[in-house]
Amino acid sequence: MTQLVFPEHANALGKAFGGQVMAWTDMCGGICAMRHVGGLAVTAAIDDLVFDRPLAVGDMVVLEARVNAAFRTSLEVEVGVWGETPATGARWKCVTALFTFVGVDEKGALRPVPALLPETDEDRARVEDATRRRAERLQRRKAPRA
Amino acid sequence: MTQLVFPEHANALGKAFGGQVMAWTDMCGGICAMRHVGGLAVTAAIDDLVFDRPLAVGDMVVLEARVNAAFRTSLEVEVGVWGETPATGARWKCVTALFTFVGVDEKGALRPVPALLPETDEDRARVEDATRRRAERLQRRKAPRA
Amino acid sequence: MTQLVFPEHANALGKAFGGQVMAWTDMCGGICAMRHVGGLAVTAAIDDLVFDRPLAVGDMVVLEARVNAAFRTSLEVEVGVWGETPATGARWKCVTALFTFVGVDEKGALRPVPALLPETDEDRARVEDATRRRAERLQRRKAPRA
Amino acid sequence: MTQLVFPEHANALGKAFGGQVMAWTDMCGGICAMRHVGGLAVTAAIDDLVFDRPLAVGDMVVLEARVNAAFRTSLEVEVGVWGETPATGARWKCVTALFTFVGVDEKGALRPVPALLPETDEDRARVEDATRRRAERLQRRKAPRA
Amino acid sequence: MTQLVFPEHANALGKAFGGQVMAWTDMCGGICAMRHVGGLAVTAAIDDLVFDRPLAVGDMVVLEARVNAAFRTSLEVEVGVWGETPATGARWKCVTALFTFVGVDEKGALRPVPALLPETDEDRARVEDATRRRAERLQRRKAPRA
Amino acid sequence: MTQLVFPEHANALGKAFGGQVMAWTDMCGGICAMRHVGGLAVTAAIDDLVFDRPLAVGDMVVLEARVNAAFRTSLEVEVGVWGETPATGARWKCVTALFTFVGVDEKGALRPVPALLPETDEDRARVEDATRRRAERLQRRKAPRA
Repeated sequence: MTQLVFPEHANALGKAFGGQVMAWTDMCGGICAMRHVGGLAVTAAIDDLVFDRPLAVGDMVVLEARVNAAFRTSLEVEVGVWGETPATGARWKCVTALFTFVGVDEKGALRPVPALLPETDEDRARVEDATRRRAERLQRRKAPRA
Repeated sequence: MTQLVFPEHANALGKAFGGQVMAWTDMCGGICAMRHVGGLAVTAAIDDLVFDRPLAVGDMVVLEARVNAAFRTSLEVEVGVWGETPATGARWKCVTALFTFVGVDEKGALRPVPALLPETDEDRARVEDATRRRAERLQRRKAPRA
Repeated sequence: MTQLVFPEHANALGKAFGGQVMAWTDMCGGICAMRHVGGLAVTAAIDDLVFDRPLAVGDMVVLEARVNAAFRTSLEVEVGVWGETPATGARWKCVTALFTFVGVDEKGALRPVPALLPETDEDRARVEDATRRRAERLQRRKAPRA
Repeated sequence: MTQLVFPEHANALGKAFGGQVMAWTDMCGGICAMRHVGGLAVTAAIDDLVFDRPLAVGDMVVLEARVNAAFRTSLEVEVGVWGETPATGARWKCVTALFTFVGVDEKGALRPVPALLPETDEDRARVEDATRRRAERLQRRKAPRA
Repeated sequence: MTQLVFPEHANALGKAFGGQVMAWTDMCGGICAMRHVGGLAVTAAIDDLVFDRPLAVGDMVVLEARVNAAFRTSLEVEVGVWGETPATGARWKCVTALFTFVGVDEKGALRPVPALLPETDEDRARVEDATRRRAERLQRRKAPRA
Repeated sequence: MTQLVFPEHANALGKAFGGQVMAWTDMCGGICAMRHVGGLAVTAAIDDLVFDRPLAVGDMVVLEARVNAAFRTSLEVEVGVWGETPATGARWKCVTALFTFVGVDEKGALRPVPALLPETDEDRARVEDATRRRAERLQRRKAPRA
């Protein structure tokens, strides 16, 4: 998924404003999730979204997403966002984020999602990491904030 | 900050789509951050953003933000989003999220932010929690993902 | 209700363009009207909308609305719009406007609206003023324009 | 000026929402004002904006504007908005409004506007009516609201 | 149909970006087609769309459309786009384009369109030219591209 | 480049409206052109844009572009648009179009574009076809329309 940063996406500094980048990131992750699920998927949570370097008006934006792990009705999708200067082709990392999507039917009710079959050791490491992060998330949500 | 959910904000299910809610959340947190900073602030990270219950077309949206803790050049802002049905006044929690904003000058360079002076025990507990979460975030960012 | 002025809201002079400010004003007044009505409300008329000082890209926008008076199926809502500079916290009045909203059901048919019970002398003065303005409006609408 | 009402312009009832219609009305009036002024013009005030019948998704919108009178640095522009059903060509009046625009230079400072030379008795009646309304507006602005 | 070019329509060069101009052109052509058809019409093809001179932020945009010829279920609509400088009234041609629209019913199925009755020699020449272009288009579509 | 069709992109039939699809197509072609050019590129012409089957709200949109041929300051870019149903993964062709982009510098002045080196027979056939189409386009532009 690619985009161009236009003035309509910019804040007063001439950079793509945070909410716009988040909206692109959410759409890219959602398409990835829907392709894995083979149906509708909606955003349930976002963690570790980090803005590294901003995007200026005129930059190209390249977004990539992959499924890290699939659980019963949810899946963790990792999205990366890169900026690219048309004149030089130079690329830099702007954003990384971990999305949790859940599979839903047409009425919005939860639906089981297909399993993810890891093939390589790297795949398996990613599933393990995602599984641990999921446990930590559930833990954090139980502990009420002050 | 309040909004109305219009069809232009909706996904194919007639609910406000995730990216739109994130954009509102970012703007609400950003205004809160800029008021504390007394200048510009941009989004550096988002964690523990959780979607609890969706917003339908026609719902009102109420957003609230508060500064949990201020560090040297960054601050943690907690944003809550509620849905409200015009006909009944019923309210429900839709989203909570923890934003990290950084103070910047007109050229985007980091700038120290004012200290937050906690007044009550609850305030102090929030600063402590935010400080611990900040350490955990920095820890997670050091550990490279598979 | 608060907003940030982004380039997407600006005219060629770098100021929020009139139609955008009017759209924010209408939304703020509409939310206020729907809360009083306890149901749907749509805009019927606007009077005495005055632009005092413009909003520039980067300014924050603060909108406030209150019900001046409720009639049988309509109510007068006064909306004020202020600009705010993030760096200094300085505020200035941008716009005031008097909206007439009518209560409607899901099909758009008129519906009676709850009475407004004035509590203070100031409240009562506002009801009186709004009642007189309503009579003048109806008078103006009867006299056909050249 | 013509438009089509798309879902992106609609409220939860499937009608063009008030703020969107106001934004179209403002743009139409502004173009009319800039043509008379021969330069930039910005909205200073709106009065007697009346919504008669709503616009549904799929309707065409036809907007017309004319200068009623020109004063030293301001002019009154009357805007009419009609709905039109593509299938039948039927037209109905949706909105009328009286805008006050002021001529400005590139920095936003007030600039004198060209005189309007009425040619017919009807033209002269419009100038008279607009002149009287302007006096009433200035009168209303002097009297502080409760 | 008239518009003002705002920053939200601009690319990184401060000019209305191609896709925005195309969207305006499509809407103007579509309204013209629906008026001829007396019902819904959707875009089937675009040819010979040529950008002559760009539109800058602050320019006014004037669009005009006319039906060149009507066939059984389709019609060719020619759209012209002009830029206009508010300060001087100077106009220049920006875009010309030939749209093919088809008449459709509420479910999107093709519907015959009314004949166009040419009145002048110029009208007849336009019908002839459009008929020849239509034959060439169908020819080009048969020949598969490499 | 991928997208999701939301209600904000739809016409009154619940399908992505022509102008929106054209805007996506233009952006996808423009990114492809800028990558080839290694700098800015703006749309000069569009031909043979054909809508085959519409996109409904909820569909995914997949866009692909490739450079067919590069001339002195212009290049022909072919863009294809496919719809994809999330539930089944089924894909269909929606749109094909031939864009002519020109390389420009920061002030919008024409700039030579790099040559395209065809490697296979298919590549060479595409260059030949595009060269012939370019000659036909220039021919058509010389012949004034009635």
